[in-house]
Amino acid sequence: MERLLRKCHIRSQLVRECMAECLGVYILILFGCGSVAQVTTTEDKKGQYLSINLGFALGVTFGVFVSRGVSGAHLNPAVSLSLCVLGRHPWLKLPFYIFFQVLGAFLAAATVGLQYYDAIQTYSGGVLTVTGPTATAGIFSTYPADYLSVWGGVVDQVIGTAALLLCVLALGDRKNTALPDFVQPVLVGAAVLVLGISMGSNSGYAINPARDFGPRLFTYIAGWGVDVFKAGGGWWWVPIVAPCVGALLGTLIYELMIEVHHPPSASELHTSCLEVTEGKMVLELGEPDCVKPA
Amino acid sequence: MERLLRKCHIRSQLVRECMAECLGVYILILFGCGSVAQVTTTEDKKGQYLSINLGFALGVTFGVFVSRGVSGAHLNPAVSLSLCVLGRHPWLKLPFYIFFQVLGAFLAAATVGLQYYDAIQTYSGGVLTVTGPTATAGIFSTYPADYLSVWGGVVDQVIGTAALLLCVLALGDRKNTALPDFVQPVLVGAAVLVLGISMGSNSGYAINPARDFGPRLFTYIAGWGVDVFKAGGGWWWVPIVAPCVGALLGTLIYELMIEVHHPPSASELHTSCLEVTEGKMVLELGEPDCVKPA
Amino acid sequence: MERLLRKCHIRSQLVRECMAECLGVYILILFGCGSVAQVTTTEDKKGQYLSINLGFALGVTFGVFVSRGVSGAHLNPAVSLSLCVLGRHPWLKLPFYIFFQVLGAFLAAATVGLQYYDAIQTYSGGVLTVTGPTATAGIFSTYPADYLSVWGGVVDQVIGTAALLLCVLALGDRKNTALPDFVQPVLVGAAVLVLGISMGSNSGYAINPARDFGPRLFTYIAGWGVDVFKAGGGWWWVPIVAPCVGALLGTLIYELMIEVHHPPSASELHTSCLEVTEGKMVLELGEPDCVKPA
Amino acid sequence: MERLLRKCHIRSQLVRECMAECLGVYILILFGCGSVAQVTTTEDKKGQYLSINLGFALGVTFGVFVSRGVSGAHLNPAVSLSLCVLGRHPWLKLPFYIFFQVLGAFLAAATVGLQYYDAIQTYSGGVLTVTGPTATAGIFSTYPADYLSVWGGVVDQVIGTAALLLCVLALGDRKNTALPDFVQPVLVGAAVLVLGISMGSNSGYAINPARDFGPRLFTYIAGWGVDVFKAGGGWWWVPIVAPCVGALLGTLIYELMIEVHHPPSASELHTSCLEVTEGKMVLELGEPDCVKPA
Repeated sequence: MERLLRKCHIRSQLVRECMAECLGVYILILFGCGSVAQVTTTEDKKGQYLSINLGFALGVTFGVFVSRGVSGAHLNPAVSLSLCVLGRHPWLKLPFYIFFQVLGAFLAAATVGLQYYDAIQTYSGGVLTVTGPTATAGIFSTYPADYLSVWGGVVDQVIGTAALLLCVLALGDRKNTALPDFVQPVLVGAAVLVLGISMGSNSGYAINPARDFGPRLFTYIAGWGVDVFKAGGGWWWVPIVAPCVGALLGTLIYELMIEVHHPPSASELHTSCLEVTEGKMVLELGEPDCVKPA
Repeated sequence: MERLLRKCHIRSQLVRECMAECLGVYILILFGCGSVAQVTTTEDKKGQYLSINLGFALGVTFGVFVSRGVSGAHLNPAVSLSLCVLGRHPWLKLPFYIFFQVLGAFLAAATVGLQYYDAIQTYSGGVLTVTGPTATAGIFSTYPADYLSVWGGVVDQVIGTAALLLCVLALGDRKNTALPDFVQPVLVGAAVLVLGISMGSNSGYAINPARDFGPRLFTYIAGWGVDVFKAGGGWWWVPIVAPCVGALLGTLIYELMIEVHHPPSASELHTSCLEVTEGKMVLELGEPDCVKPA
Repeated sequence: MERLLRKCHIRSQLVRECMAECLGVYILILFGCGSVAQVTTTEDKKGQYLSINLGFALGVTFGVFVSRGVSGAHLNPAVSLSLCVLGRHPWLKLPFYIFFQVLGAFLAAATVGLQYYDAIQTYSGGVLTVTGPTATAGIFSTYPADYLSVWGGVVDQVIGTAALLLCVLALGDRKNTALPDFVQPVLVGAAVLVLGISMGSNSGYAINPARDFGPRLFTYIAGWGVDVFKAGGGWWWVPIVAPCVGALLGTLIYELMIEVHHPPSASELHTSCLEVTEGKMVLELGEPDCVKPA
Repeated sequence: MERLLRKCHIRSQLVRECMAECLGVYILILFGCGSVAQVTTTEDKKGQYLSINLGFALGVTFGVFVSRGVSGAHLNPAVSLSLCVLGRHPWLKLPFYIFFQVLGAFLAAATVGLQYYDAIQTYSGGVLTVTGPTATAGIFSTYPADYLSVWGGVVDQVIGTAALLLCVLALGDRKNTALPDFVQPVLVGAAVLVLGISMGSNSGYAINPARDFGPRLFTYIAGWGVDVFKAGGGWWWVPIVAPCVGALLGTLIYELMIEVHHPPSASELHTSCLEVTEGKMVLELGEPDCVKPA
């Protein structure tokens, strides 16, 4: 069997990364939306809001474990975008990452729809609605609370995604606290847990364009219809645009308040000297950022 | 005392593995079914559905800690089967593993029955039923929700066990993220937690033939009678067959999307060259999978 | 300040160990009984049964962190007893350990009584009762459920403490899974969590004579009176005797099913040869347990 | 972008530490008070008291991750004070640390106020009150339960902060259990979790002057008015003064019962000998604390 499987070996790094992102987001949404489906269709008898928070948190954790060795486990277009802006990920790969992230979310939503088919039919009486007492579209994508203005929703998603990036960048900053590889997926999950606990009630903490748009597309096709785009005053674009803005804001805050001020390490000093030397063919000995390591 | 115990030293690797699997599943079911018993007999006053999820999750964690150093802690015939198919476990041991996994589950169910004897008698008014308002058979093995078709139940268990294997294989894949030994039991427990949170309401997330069949056998013998096999339209075979199918499906997905594409490590390249050389007495220098490590 | 403190340096290993056990159990009961006080006096508004489980679990975790470097963090006379029986702890220290464990529990119960004085007075209307609708003695020590026979209670506590020891011994067995020092306190806490989730409803999972007797003594003195010994058909002796029996049973099961069968390590083989040689002045070359390490 | 950011590099250690403390407390309060806002404005539908406990716990965890590499992550004036008293932190930095801790808490409260603006307006009917059925000041800072006397509140906060320091000092005591860097933030969060579970109901477990005073200042300015200082019989000073007393008490207990009694390590012995030698120019060979390492 293992020999047979090895025949399918793919060498292309990009294809491998796209598959990993796709499967990673698939896991995230399978567990995340699955937990919403369970709580919704059992009317809080087999789970509560905290279960949903845990479902998305552990969904992220296992989504990261599935993909981080291959693609670095962005699992979120807003995260991919921030890393591109920081120069830590090639811009060229961005559209591929985003497409496969959305695809993974779409496929996972379809799987949840299949697994909870009987439950959703029974709960909703066979009528798939986006609003009302037996609405089921909220199992798949986010909708704002009744009281929330669109502007309030944008603020909510910007703050939420900024907080996510603050946590994610702190966890990845080896000069702050160096984490062993296996800890990071758990703690990124914990960050998503606390986001759901503290910023979930306004509009369902999408904080991830793929997490929201993929499943929304599925509900559009699978019978909930065009209401999934009309509901909440045309809410659908907010969890796409606002997380990207929030991610950049969070990145900026973390970089400006913490990361850029770390003193350079010995190896960096050396590299930086070489850069200067090779780039300008001048070694400015007085340059304070370019002291030879002892 | 320690000297006395040492007299009982058993050398046979298979016997030791079988005892470890038996005790591992025993712990899993003792904590898992114990938590269902607590929630059921106190009518949700001393626990909720989340407690049950935590009970099975931590049951798995400690079941794995008890057995992993000896038997590798499969604790699940569907996992054993997948590892056999992947060539990572000998087929010959499979029936022994399965038998002792079921035995452990049976003994644990008997222990829970003993520990909660007074509670079950009081809660059920002394009448042990499989369905109805004071049904207690669900403490031990799984039954489908009223709305669930048999086909829906099969789909539910296939998806659930596939998701379990995706997580378990990712956690065991050292080329993805290498985990220290002590972390794996905790994270396998976390995988079972999120499965219970996101896929528990349809049919109780057996996702393990031994976890379901051992306790069902106990209830059959201990007074619940033949109804435990008849209930849910003859549900009992689903949590035996579907998890095996699901485990293989999950294994296939993980292997095809992630594991087989990992670039070979230096030591593997070397081995693979030697295999070719020794096996065929030919060293095909152009063979792309057989480059000498630098 | 630090210089001043250093003057108080105590060298006696036993005194240090007793203080550490005392403070460790103090932390355990402070958090554990504190969480019961919070849930009881707020009538489940600021916590539920799961909070109590978490309170005792994290109480154990931090109790272990506070004391393990000094005394090994038994925090439980039943654990101390088992380790003495196994020959891993000197019998001479046992009475000291037990006394200071009970003392720590007593002092912690007094602290909880002080911290929740206003709350208990308001909740109970100023009448401290052991049974009835506003009973508050259960904040401090355990009482059986109405349905539980004394024999059922003994079985419950024996099984519970046996399960605790199975977990604790597995976590300490370096030939099964070697745990880093910092992980053990967390996982022992997790074991107590799952015990509370799966075996808490019958009689409050004392599984520790000091945890139960120390606070019971406090309630006896502090105004609840002799009822604390009479209630539950003279229940008080069960959480003292049964955990000791259970701990020995759990130890026996783990030793006989797992630990004694581990193959000896190279260094052990060597020691064992030396023992034979030096002890009997005879080197039986054929002795199967005494092969020289390669 | 990264080049651009590097231009903003700040070298001053104190400025960096102040920014880190500010951002760390910001994260703590953003998640902590955010979770109270979510539970309050959804009337327990999207969270319960346990969510609030988790919100503050994970808030602390990520607050520590954000700042520990730079400032050591005190995040609490009472902790800073204790470390100064112990001689582990310079007194000169204390006022700066405290100011920026309070500033971070103030800014986070303002962010929560912004994010939950619509929710608070709807829940409270637009009237911002400190007491009464739709009071919302409790989202930001703590108020005592109706039954609590001021003296009872002081005792509550002293015990709570002493318990916090016992845990924090045990986690930082490398001679007790040495923790890897990445574990400490998680376990400090766990300490805050168990404090909220076991000591939260009397007066909201401020146990941190900055956590309480910063947000209280925000509510004073933002429309809740002078009642935030008058409520609870002029409660506001208790969560400022009592935690400082409690922190010192907890420090004293841990030092006197555990830390000062650790046997000195080889390197300390050496240093201590050198100190004696160099400081007094006398080597008292009989000095028991000054034995040469073997």
